[in-house]
Amino acid sequence: MTHAHESHREMAPKKLGFYVITVSTSRYQKMSRKEPVVDESGDKIKELIISHGHELKGYALVPDDKVRILKAVIDAVLTEGVDVIVSTGGTGYTPSDVTVESVRGILDREVEGFGDVFRALSLSDPKVGPASYLTKASAGILRGKIIYMLPGSPDAVKLGMEKLILPEAPHLTFLARSSQ
Amino acid sequence: MTHAHESHREMAPKKLGFYVITVSTSRYQKMSRKEPVVDESGDKIKELIISHGHELKGYALVPDDKVRILKAVIDAVLTEGVDVIVSTGGTGYTPSDVTVESVRGILDREVEGFGDVFRALSLSDPKVGPASYLTKASAGILRGKIIYMLPGSPDAVKLGMEKLILPEAPHLTFLARSSQ
Amino acid sequence: MTHAHESHREMAPKKLGFYVITVSTSRYQKMSRKEPVVDESGDKIKELIISHGHELKGYALVPDDKVRILKAVIDAVLTEGVDVIVSTGGTGYTPSDVTVESVRGILDREVEGFGDVFRALSLSDPKVGPASYLTKASAGILRGKIIYMLPGSPDAVKLGMEKLILPEAPHLTFLARSSQ
Amino acid sequence: MTHAHESHREMAPKKLGFYVITVSTSRYQKMSRKEPVVDESGDKIKELIISHGHELKGYALVPDDKVRILKAVIDAVLTEGVDVIVSTGGTGYTPSDVTVESVRGILDREVEGFGDVFRALSLSDPKVGPASYLTKASAGILRGKIIYMLPGSPDAVKLGMEKLILPEAPHLTFLARSSQ
Amino acid sequence: MTHAHESHREMAPKKLGFYVITVSTSRYQKMSRKEPVVDESGDKIKELIISHGHELKGYALVPDDKVRILKAVIDAVLTEGVDVIVSTGGTGYTPSDVTVESVRGILDREVEGFGDVFRALSLSDPKVGPASYLTKASAGILRGKIIYMLPGSPDAVKLGMEKLILPEAPHLTFLARSSQ
Amino acid sequence: MTHAHESHREMAPKKLGFYVITVSTSRYQKMSRKEPVVDESGDKIKELIISHGHELKGYALVPDDKVRILKAVIDAVLTEGVDVIVSTGGTGYTPSDVTVESVRGILDREVEGFGDVFRALSLSDPKVGPASYLTKASAGILRGKIIYMLPGSPDAVKLGMEKLILPEAPHLTFLARSSQ
Ligand SMILES: [Mg+2]
Ligand SMILES: [Mg+2]
Ligand SMILES: [Mg+2]
Ligand SMILES: [Mg+2]
Repeated sequence: MTHAHESHREMAPKKLGFYVITVSTSRYQKMSRKEPVVDESGDKIKELIISHGHELKGYALVPDDKVRILKAVIDAVLTEGVDVIVSTGGTGYTPSDVTVESVRGILDREVEGFGDVFRALSLSDPKVGPASYLTKASAGILRGKIIYMLPGSPDAVKLGMEKLILPEAPHLTFLARSSQ
Repeated sequence: MTHAHESHREMAPKKLGFYVITVSTSRYQKMSRKEPVVDESGDKIKELIISHGHELKGYALVPDDKVRILKAVIDAVLTEGVDVIVSTGGTGYTPSDVTVESVRGILDREVEGFGDVFRALSLSDPKVGPASYLTKASAGILRGKIIYMLPGSPDAVKLGMEKLILPEAPHLTFLARSSQ
Repeated sequence: MTHAHESHREMAPKKLGFYVITVSTSRYQKMSRKEPVVDESGDKIKELIISHGHELKGYALVPDDKVRILKAVIDAVLTEGVDVIVSTGGTGYTPSDVTVESVRGILDREVEGFGDVFRALSLSDPKVGPASYLTKASAGILRGKIIYMLPGSPDAVKLGMEKLILPEAPHLTFLARSSQ
Repeated sequence: MTHAHESHREMAPKKLGFYVITVSTSRYQKMSRKEPVVDESGDKIKELIISHGHELKGYALVPDDKVRILKAVIDAVLTEGVDVIVSTGGTGYTPSDVTVESVRGILDREVEGFGDVFRALSLSDPKVGPASYLTKASAGILRGKIIYMLPGSPDAVKLGMEKLILPEAPHLTFLARSSQ
Repeated sequence: MTHAHESHREMAPKKLGFYVITVSTSRYQKMSRKEPVVDESGDKIKELIISHGHELKGYALVPDDKVRILKAVIDAVLTEGVDVIVSTGGTGYTPSDVTVESVRGILDREVEGFGDVFRALSLSDPKVGPASYLTKASAGILRGKIIYMLPGSPDAVKLGMEKLILPEAPHLTFLARSSQ
Repeated sequence: MTHAHESHREMAPKKLGFYVITVSTSRYQKMSRKEPVVDESGDKIKELIISHGHELKGYALVPDDKVRILKAVIDAVLTEGVDVIVSTGGTGYTPSDVTVESVRGILDREVEGFGDVFRALSLSDPKVGPASYLTKASAGILRGKIIYMLPGSPDAVKLGMEKLILPEAPHLTFLARSSQ
């Protein structure tokens, strides 16, 4: 008895093209004013992409604004060589947090289990614990490309990338593009 | 590297106003017939609110009926000083269980991770285990007030209050009312 | 203080009628060509049903096709003596996986916590781990009958049957048909 | 060949209990300041109810606010003897217009054709014409009671009451409460 | 300047295969008791199909029951040579009327304008007039087959067939199966 | 007694900025091959915009593809001075027609009556008649900008522009941006 997961993983692409989107009004405003911007979470994602042998195909910094977020995601989907899009920020419960709500409306399919698995992992992280229910982290598929939406904190980004995205994105990319 | 959760918790209000709603047709009928009503779960919530330094602003006992449940929630939202509403009962899969389905229709936003985190905790409780998938416990935000919907059993109420609501309600209240 | 779960379990039926549906285009095509078909996951479900004292009321093998899946589920619901329907296959993220999306549209009620509890269990299984977020396993109620949708792998079927369905299907059947 | 409509109309109740809700922030504020309030549209509805032999069971004036609108509708549904609820106002496309969006979430069933029939009649009214597409007038059923949501202008109220509500509310009330 | 409608109509099939479904609990019960059943509306549809040169591929009489209605529609879709399915009955606002609500959940696509155009025609029929808003008549596409849901009265069936279905079903069938 | 419509029309802007989007795979492919493209419907919209004193702020020709359509709409919304976006094409029932389904997912609010009023007008046009139910023409609001989605035929575009958009777009723009 074997898991289909195991054979799929072997056939999956080893090197993927990533596009990173940081959603943060405060950093966007700094950038607009030409001030230096520290984007710890965006940098963390980029660093992990490279250190795992994948390629960074593009990056955008946008404010917590539905239209700007959608524009970034659509531009990423249309960028040559992009397989996976990872956003950070805008997944919480302040009124300005709209990343998941905005992107959901354009997905071909939501990966409905990403959010609960992310929260189950956060729940057992002593630094998060019960606060895990305060995040809407989600994922979805648009035109065979995977879109992951992570919270804005560097720790959450590290957990999401290391425990969920890097191990399974090649597999999910393979599935989403499979013709059978 | 720090979790945003930590700094937010410091800024969050320490003392909250709670409103408790028990949803139970059998207890409601007893009350209507002027018989003595034992509401163990409602009492447990009230006791935990007080012992954690919060304030009880109101209480309602309603039957498993969409219109009565909605009236209780709306009256609670309109009660001066209420920050958090906690209901108990009506979250299961008998045809009369309609609490979550009724309240969902009026939320500004559902806290979509509350249900799965509640179930993840129940799953590891040996007294519940696999039965955890039989509950629809959920939460949401209406006008900056948090509405938690817990199952009807005293054990479920204890778990929900001690592990999830009391630790994070101040934080979530702060987020839901934040202007940025 | 007791869990309502405990007393309900006592009142629940001990012996249930099951209907098994295997969703697999490749096996369906083999069957259509009159070639021998090995249906390891379907067989596993049937074996577990019998070994736990329940009864197998029917079986269907259908392709990954919305109309065929719906026909199988509706025929199962209309089969005399069926209490529980278990499907295997079509719950992943290849474009052809449509079991959950198809069945969702006809449910009276979705058991919204089945998917996340299934994933929480898979997450802690070292053979699955993070791949747990790649499944949409779900459950629902139609006319008092329970419909469980499991992934196609034998291991997933074993986990779902042994840890979630066999322990709680009698209980959920009892709840779904309860008049109060 | 006969229309079922005709025989139903005969069996329908001749005298109905109405509840009128005016949704208008400006009038609500005047009322809150104890200034005299002219509610031409609300008055028009009441006048037509009485002149057609029905009874006015209650009236509320609320601002364009989801929670206040919901409270008024739920209180109306729970008022003894109310068969039909008619609201006026909040059905347009300014950001503050939220009547239909608010009430939709609690309906047992939306009368999905009311809006388009209302617009078809408005379209042929030379005073409205193409502006007919700017209204969301709708209707629905909650617990066997009919809720009509009309625009705020006196002309729209006159058209809705005289051409659609007064002729068919008894019939629809009969249907909504029919057991077969 | 020409309407695309005109050229499409020329390419559309001239002869279609129809399947008729009468949804009526009272007639179904008569049939179950082996009493003679008069199905005026079903007969009207069949008569119009034949007199317009189309073919009747099948017929079913089902009660106002979600599962039975779905079974009839799915069996019709799977019947060789069926292009168009027409149901009559169950489109109103008695609690038992569930045809549209049941079928909607399985459509690939709803023909969202059928209901309002049907009502616009009924509105100008003096025998219906304002009662036109009491019907949910709708249509949709499932696997390239068109499903029309008409009210139960013979007059409504005549209007729907003569004014909307017979003139445009070939055209819509052509569109729904077009590869461009 | 006056219609609010009348006074609003006076306050509404007289000159609007328009953005035109033609959705047509065949024309897009011609353009991609650098062949001459005749876009009769797009030209008709532009001509009517100018002849009515408005300004053309931009134009895009995109294929019947969800991501390309979304990109065009979002770019239009982000274009300085754009008040109204009008698309033509992709509103029918061939499998490739996806304009309305694509755009709906990003609207702040759908103008739910535009489709039925458009169809009511088409129904009484002898060149369209019953074929009116074959179009999904719709409209919506995104960030205070109005998005109209018209069918692809020049006649449909003429009807939509002359009878509905040009007369009411200033009014609707005014409403959508109103703060009260
Ligand atoms: Mg942020
Ligand atoms: Mg209960
Ligand atoms: Mg498969
Ligand atoms: Mg086209």
